[in-house]
Amino acid sequence: MNDSVSVKGNLMVRLVLLMAGVAAAMGLEAQETASIDPWSTQDSVMLARIHQQVLGEGACYEDLRFLCKEVGPRLSGSPEADEAILWGGKTLQALGVGEVRMQPVIVPHWERGGAEQAWMRVNGGEREPLRVAALGGSVGTTGDIEGDVAVFRDFAELDSLGEDGLAGRIAFFNRPMDPLMINAGSAYGGAYEQRSKGAVESARHGGMAALVRSLTHAMDTFPHTGGMRYNDEVRQVPAAAVSTVDARRIARLVNAGEEVRVGLNMGCILHDDKSQANVIAEWTGSEFPDRYIVVGGHLDSWDIGEGAHDDGAGIVQSIEVLRTLHALGYQPRHTLRVVLFINEENGNNGGKTYAQRAREKGEWHVAAVESDAGGDAPRGYSIDASDAGTAAVRSWQEVLGDYGVGDLRRGGAGVDIGPLKKEMPAGKRPLMVGLRPNSQRYFDYHHSDRDVFENVHERELKLGAAALTSMVYLLDRLNYDSLD
Amino acid sequence: MNDSVSVKGNLMVRLVLLMAGVAAAMGLEAQETASIDPWSTQDSVMLARIHQQVLGEGACYEDLRFLCKEVGPRLSGSPEADEAILWGGKTLQALGVGEVRMQPVIVPHWERGGAEQAWMRVNGGEREPLRVAALGGSVGTTGDIEGDVAVFRDFAELDSLGEDGLAGRIAFFNRPMDPLMINAGSAYGGAYEQRSKGAVESARHGGMAALVRSLTHAMDTFPHTGGMRYNDEVRQVPAAAVSTVDARRIARLVNAGEEVRVGLNMGCILHDDKSQANVIAEWTGSEFPDRYIVVGGHLDSWDIGEGAHDDGAGIVQSIEVLRTLHALGYQPRHTLRVVLFINEENGNNGGKTYAQRAREKGEWHVAAVESDAGGDAPRGYSIDASDAGTAAVRSWQEVLGDYGVGDLRRGGAGVDIGPLKKEMPAGKRPLMVGLRPNSQRYFDYHHSDRDVFENVHERELKLGAAALTSMVYLLDRLNYDSLD
Repeated sequence: MNDSVSVKGNLMVRLVLLMAGVAAAMGLEAQETASIDPWSTQDSVMLARIHQQVLGEGACYEDLRFLCKEVGPRLSGSPEADEAILWGGKTLQALGVGEVRMQPVIVPHWERGGAEQAWMRVNGGEREPLRVAALGGSVGTTGDIEGDVAVFRDFAELDSLGEDGLAGRIAFFNRPMDPLMINAGSAYGGAYEQRSKGAVESARHGGMAALVRSLTHAMDTFPHTGGMRYNDEVRQVPAAAVSTVDARRIARLVNAGEEVRVGLNMGCILHDDKSQANVIAEWTGSEFPDRYIVVGGHLDSWDIGEGAHDDGAGIVQSIEVLRTLHALGYQPRHTLRVVLFINEENGNNGGKTYAQRAREKGEWHVAAVESDAGGDAPRGYSIDASDAGTAAVRSWQEVLGDYGVGDLRRGGAGVDIGPLKKEMPAGKRPLMVGLRPNSQRYFDYHHSDRDVFENVHERELKLGAAALTSMVYLLDRLNYDSLD
Repeated sequence: MNDSVSVKGNLMVRLVLLMAGVAAAMGLEAQETASIDPWSTQDSVMLARIHQQVLGEGACYEDLRFLCKEVGPRLSGSPEADEAILWGGKTLQALGVGEVRMQPVIVPHWERGGAEQAWMRVNGGEREPLRVAALGGSVGTTGDIEGDVAVFRDFAELDSLGEDGLAGRIAFFNRPMDPLMINAGSAYGGAYEQRSKGAVESARHGGMAALVRSLTHAMDTFPHTGGMRYNDEVRQVPAAAVSTVDARRIARLVNAGEEVRVGLNMGCILHDDKSQANVIAEWTGSEFPDRYIVVGGHLDSWDIGEGAHDDGAGIVQSIEVLRTLHALGYQPRHTLRVVLFINEENGNNGGKTYAQRAREKGEWHVAAVESDAGGDAPRGYSIDASDAGTAAVRSWQEVLGDYGVGDLRRGGAGVDIGPLKKEMPAGKRPLMVGLRPNSQRYFDYHHSDRDVFENVHERELKLGAAALTSMVYLLDRLNYDSLD
């Protein structure tokens, strides 16, 4: 591209920014004096001001730097998660708006227990190192273990082996994320059972461990960890993710008829549960103080990388919502809660506890918004709502499109806010919205050493924060008595 | 994000892929046997097959590796541009579809002439190096030159200086790309006059050179080059871009009242014009052999970096269009031309020559499509067409949205295809469409040492190729007799 870049695409935005300047000069009276179509004019001006504020004055990128570099990885139960909670509370408090409190949450406390060791031996040869990461929740190995490897693409292939068909062997689940799917999140969804249930499926057939291909489209040497679960019916066997480069190598050797043994040494420990907290900032609404709009992400991360995209981005963007609306002199109609949830990665006890307390108190959550799909360029939103709620959000498509976030689809909105839907009675379920950034690079970083601050793009992070703020603002403008 | 990723968003795509499998098994007869709504069913199936083919079998990423690493930077007139032309011809020929030919184009032949040297002296002190790149087309310096620097944000500020107000001084144009604009391309458009006209404006006021802040949102140490022009009215003075980090430093010093002198030594040479070529692959249409659809990008690049995003991406995506449609057994209705244009960066003689020849031959170009906005994740298309043409493209919004490219806006479509619009008589102007990827990172790389293969994401490049192919396919399905 040389010099004939069209500016037409941004003309409307520029006009709106001009109007925003006028509105700012007049103070917020613009809200009252707008004529003809007060709703859309006021909203257009506000969306322009939000973007101007975040792009020009936003602090979310600096917040992310601190969270990643000074706090670092912060798995539930760890001292670093305690630090993150304190940091979140202080950062919200410093905004000088609303009340900040800690909501106690009981969380699991699992530790990797030092760097794992893994190796393979081809045809009885020397140990060749493999790059693995224990899956979160896995038991350790009590010293070295080693077994022949058997490769599977899905659980159905295991069933033909019978009850002890894997005795003395290690099941290796090697189904890649489907490269033909357009949305990388959907490809992840189609492969993740291997990680969450691989250990149980291996043990059901007498296997001694489970090795899982890392859930990523990238062909590289980084293992990607993630949650896994046991059940009460079978032995607990160790489970680890292996890098895609190593996964390819093992599979090729096995396919070529070589005998491959894999060894593991993991010192994972499951401690007693611990009390940590959701961090909640509450800004009382002027018209509907007893109706709540929640916006948040999760403060915990895995214990490798820095949790920059997952979900440092969502945390600093949620904080930016409060900072931005306050800086613009906005007064929310509904009570706005920014919630930094704990323990999304291995239990979701933060989301569950929040929803249980809300139900116990009879709080009506009219809307809930989450950012937990990374800090890349925002494209739109995922809507989990009634037909009327969905239609309300879709009515903003054109104005959102001017900010590059006009892609509106029905779908899940977020893990942390998910329990709010389950806990609330029909008719009082929140209109739920999830920010949807570009998904193509997210799993390159996800749950690995690559999920670091340097891999977050400042402008894209800020555009996401502005998009999140815009959605909260628009949801605050809705009249929930006439929805449904 | 943990494990509750919704797959709803991709459900339609999966269904369509299933149908595509069925259609593939039946051969292309599916085109004839589709019932009820043959148009949309057939198109949905084809778009799914296109994406499946490119994501699964596409070679554009490997093509880009070759173009960047084996050919490298390829400024018009250089031996590397000759190499690129040969490579383009061979690569298209190897697809085994249509005729490949070279269309001679006279291009300028400018050379940087070795690494530039630049420095500043603060208050008469020692030389401190600055990171600069001569602008393309600039004259050299005949040895060292040095002058006091005067900082400007726009040309209007210069006018107050009078005719010789800059005598013995160097004008430094330091207006950043507007960080408040959403679209980075528009922010570029708002700042680029400093680069294209800075030297003329400096000379008009007696200045000895022009220094221009690099056109990028990134705050880093890479100078970003680009085209500039002289006119016949004033002396030709040297012009160079300086990195944003250095630009900030100079401006802060000047603002603090320090005396800053800047020096330059550049050996730029303008050789005689040279004959190079557009590379054209032509695939004759089955129904309308004398109506043309063009798709392309530009083969030339600047002489630093590797021209990976600008516009290696557009070149390999255009080649992928032909490869993909051929692999799927498609037969175009209109004659399809893939054009690898030469000389977009400093003259656009490739685009101009192509349009002139087309006019001379009376060819009716019904549509023209360009990819020259980088290889990042595609978001949609820019449409430059009549109301009827625009409405036709917009009618595909929903199906394109399923592939993440539903953002359709009016605006410029591309520099290379631009002259086709000017040369053609009213009523015979092509429906013009430009692929629009995410713009946020593009100018981080643009015209600098960072525009290398490693900064292109394989899946995003391929999704762009699939989006380009989809648009060409859909445009081939249109009936142009009934479009204004």
